[in-house]
Amino acid sequence: MLKKNYKEVEEKEAVLADGTKVDGIYIRWLIDENLGARNFAMRRIEVKSGQNVPLHNHPEDHEIYVLSGTGKFYNDKGKVEIANEGDFVYIPPNEKHGIDNVGKNSLSFLCLIPYLKQKS
Amino acid sequence: MLKKNYKEVEEKEAVLADGTKVDGIYIRWLIDENLGARNFAMRRIEVKSGQNVPLHNHPEDHEIYVLSGTGKFYNDKGKVEIANEGDFVYIPPNEKHGIDNVGKNSLSFLCLIPYLKQKS
Repeated sequence: MLKKNYKEVEEKEAVLADGTKVDGIYIRWLIDENLGARNFAMRRIEVKSGQNVPLHNHPEDHEIYVLSGTGKFYNDKGKVEIANEGDFVYIPPNEKHGIDNVGKNSLSFLCLIPYLKQKS
Repeated sequence: MLKKNYKEVEEKEAVLADGTKVDGIYIRWLIDENLGARNFAMRRIEVKSGQNVPLHNHPEDHEIYVLSGTGKFYNDKGKVEIANEGDFVYIPPNEKHGIDNVGKNSLSFLCLIPYLKQKS
């Protein structure tokens, strides 16, 4: 058993799955393989006011829980969802998705992704 | 993409992995196989004031993030951690663990577990 506060974890500038740098997006890997987690990882992401995560996709699905702020979550097929504290969002594998901070404050959310196993 | 608020999800009385009923513990399965999630599930658990989750274990590891309240997380080897909002806890597979609400208010946390695959 291990306990920490999220502030004890180093905050890094976020990079998209394809290596693209994004401005004003910070990520903390709270629980990951370094702690022994082999199935999925818990990250805490902060999107500064006025910033956004552009449309992108990857084979990992996302399980998201909004902690504070207001985010616009959208895909490339016209779906748009506004999410606030206590809202959760599920993004299936490979679905293109983007996130805009549409509030006055930072948008903070947990975003969990699986460690996908190699197909045998 | 799917978005909901946790309050839209039915709250159920929690049952331990071995079928034991526990008093004053409520669970909402926010993201699970019913939504298409195949790798892991997001649950939101509420432990009422004065209540506790007794020591138990199972093959699934836990990734926990405390949303509100104060919890005492412990194992059967003397490890004790007090966790508040913004703290996260990792419980490895098969480790015996218990959770006491040691605050005046409800203890609420996210608790994510993998869908373990059958060994082939």
